[in-house]
Amino acid sequence: MPFTRCHSCLSLAGRAALEQAHMSLPRIAITMGDLAGVGPELCLRALASAEVARFCIPVVVGDVSVLDACARTVGVPFEAGKVESAGVGGCEGPSVLDIGAIAPAQFTPGVMSADTGRAAFAYVERAISLALGRDVAAVTTAPLNKEALHLAGIHFPGHTEIFAARAGSNRFCMMQYSEEITCTFVTVHVGYAEVPPLLTRERILEVIELTAAGLERIRGRRPKIVVLGLNPHAGEHGLFGAREEERFIIPAIEAARAAGHDVEGPVPPDTAFLPWKRRSTDAFVCMYHDQGHIPVKALAFESAVNTTLGLPILRTSVDHGTALDIAWKGSAKEDSLLAALRLAARLS
Amino acid sequence: MPFTRCHSCLSLAGRAALEQAHMSLPRIAITMGDLAGVGPELCLRALASAEVARFCIPVVVGDVSVLDACARTVGVPFEAGKVESAGVGGCEGPSVLDIGAIAPAQFTPGVMSADTGRAAFAYVERAISLALGRDVAAVTTAPLNKEALHLAGIHFPGHTEIFAARAGSNRFCMMQYSEEITCTFVTVHVGYAEVPPLLTRERILEVIELTAAGLERIRGRRPKIVVLGLNPHAGEHGLFGAREEERFIIPAIEAARAAGHDVEGPVPPDTAFLPWKRRSTDAFVCMYHDQGHIPVKALAFESAVNTTLGLPILRTSVDHGTALDIAWKGSAKEDSLLAALRLAARLS
Repeated sequence: MPFTRCHSCLSLAGRAALEQAHMSLPRIAITMGDLAGVGPELCLRALASAEVARFCIPVVVGDVSVLDACARTVGVPFEAGKVESAGVGGCEGPSVLDIGAIAPAQFTPGVMSADTGRAAFAYVERAISLALGRDVAAVTTAPLNKEALHLAGIHFPGHTEIFAARAGSNRFCMMQYSEEITCTFVTVHVGYAEVPPLLTRERILEVIELTAAGLERIRGRRPKIVVLGLNPHAGEHGLFGAREEERFIIPAIEAARAAGHDVEGPVPPDTAFLPWKRRSTDAFVCMYHDQGHIPVKALAFESAVNTTLGLPILRTSVDHGTALDIAWKGSAKEDSLLAALRLAARLS
Repeated sequence: MPFTRCHSCLSLAGRAALEQAHMSLPRIAITMGDLAGVGPELCLRALASAEVARFCIPVVVGDVSVLDACARTVGVPFEAGKVESAGVGGCEGPSVLDIGAIAPAQFTPGVMSADTGRAAFAYVERAISLALGRDVAAVTTAPLNKEALHLAGIHFPGHTEIFAARAGSNRFCMMQYSEEITCTFVTVHVGYAEVPPLLTRERILEVIELTAAGLERIRGRRPKIVVLGLNPHAGEHGLFGAREEERFIIPAIEAARAAGHDVEGPVPPDTAFLPWKRRSTDAFVCMYHDQGHIPVKALAFESAVNTTLGLPILRTSVDHGTALDIAWKGSAKEDSLLAALRLAARLS
């Protein structure tokens, strides 16, 4: 097993120089995600990345035996320090915290199972503990398989909700961030028909405020925010829909403007994302999952980062799924994970 | 008034050559749309276009006095033959059928009104009559203002529904066509919350079949069709939503496959439009307006054409609105209208 002590990464450059640089680099926990998917390979690539080592100290939270098996299968080198929970806060190079949740023989790459769902959840829970204890500055998550979670009897619809529950936070929202297009969400993992009853002036205002605060942190100035309507053509002044725009969205926009935010809307959802509109907008506040996920994935699939605004824990995530079809085959691209780590480091 | 007899266009090239070419060119009626918007300027540009004259004989259905006023305001030349209804079928060059629905003094460019709504509707009705009488091979429409229609007491949500009603057709669907991405729609101009009750196995199958027939006509081969789910992640096997995928969408897909169509789905709406997926798909069957309109406008705003499949009348339309803010200012781009004319000529 090509497993070494902490500092193994230091062959990348002179030890003295890196030690000085590391003093200011944030430690970021990376959860391994669902092991049957591309998570293990992505973690190996992040640990081996010279670019990642320049802006953060990655600490993979997962199973060493699985990383080792994956490294041998896909042919990616596996060199990282092994740390205990108590040592994470002092870790100075790419490292792995070995949870011992599962052994390689207990699952098959590419095949969904309760066992990998349970392990993935254990990694997330441990990473949250590290963040709450300030041992890491942020958590970046590899993809979960929600069906595997459910098979394991764990009924969270996604990372966002797990982090919110564990951090005891009720005031949060999902953000998909990229340089090309950034969206935040009033509702996320609910069925299509369940969206309208969840739209209230208070919730929409909350998401506008979280978006304004999050983007101001990224941009260093007051952001330009566009709020979408719910109905086709944003209801076209009551022609379509149950006047959700007039009842909830417009009052929220007016309250946000009164509080000093730069907010436009409600705009027709289909014209919101025209190229010239995207260039002049820092973030789009979307009413439901696919309203924002469709354009983000169509326009910025490989660079988009998923994060949760409003939590006491900084958390970013890849913007793709477990990709069971290409798991453990050596062809997974780490672009999205690296973008997620970069944003986490930037916000740290 | 720079208004001439039919054949004025023939200064573009030798008369003899063009007369021969015209024998095989389809006549296409172009409605002027809402006059307060960009419709008049777009019609002038289409009439003056040497490219348009190469693939069709454009016949604008509208008001000559308004075209003339617009030409003077925006500085676009206005040269076209004037024809009566009875003469449209024999028209051999760019022409205008003068309806006399409104005078320039009766409205203000950029300002919505019942009068322009009423006039726009009159143009559409006359164009439909021409098409039903085989005087034109197709109709291409400039944008309507639905609110202006409603002010005029005309309660159609859009062109698609007007054409369907006048053609006495119940079996039709909207299509947005472009080389980059093509979508068809199970539901269109209804409020967000009204969509789920409209989804039935029969309607979804109907749209798949209309899509297959329409795309086969364009591509000259059996098209590859992708059907989207309704819920986030296409319901993720029942985790989100009321199992609309299992109840209606999957049975429709199975019936379409049994009939020999090449259909995939239901796919998660947000990953349906990834670049590689777009390249391998001829058309996406969407459950609701913004599910398809968002990616089409984000990716192909200037080239997308709106058409209605299943009608006895061939009809295409620009894919943008009336653009009141830039109306009669000389800056309207005719790309979308030309694309709509091109598709109409191709399908004729």
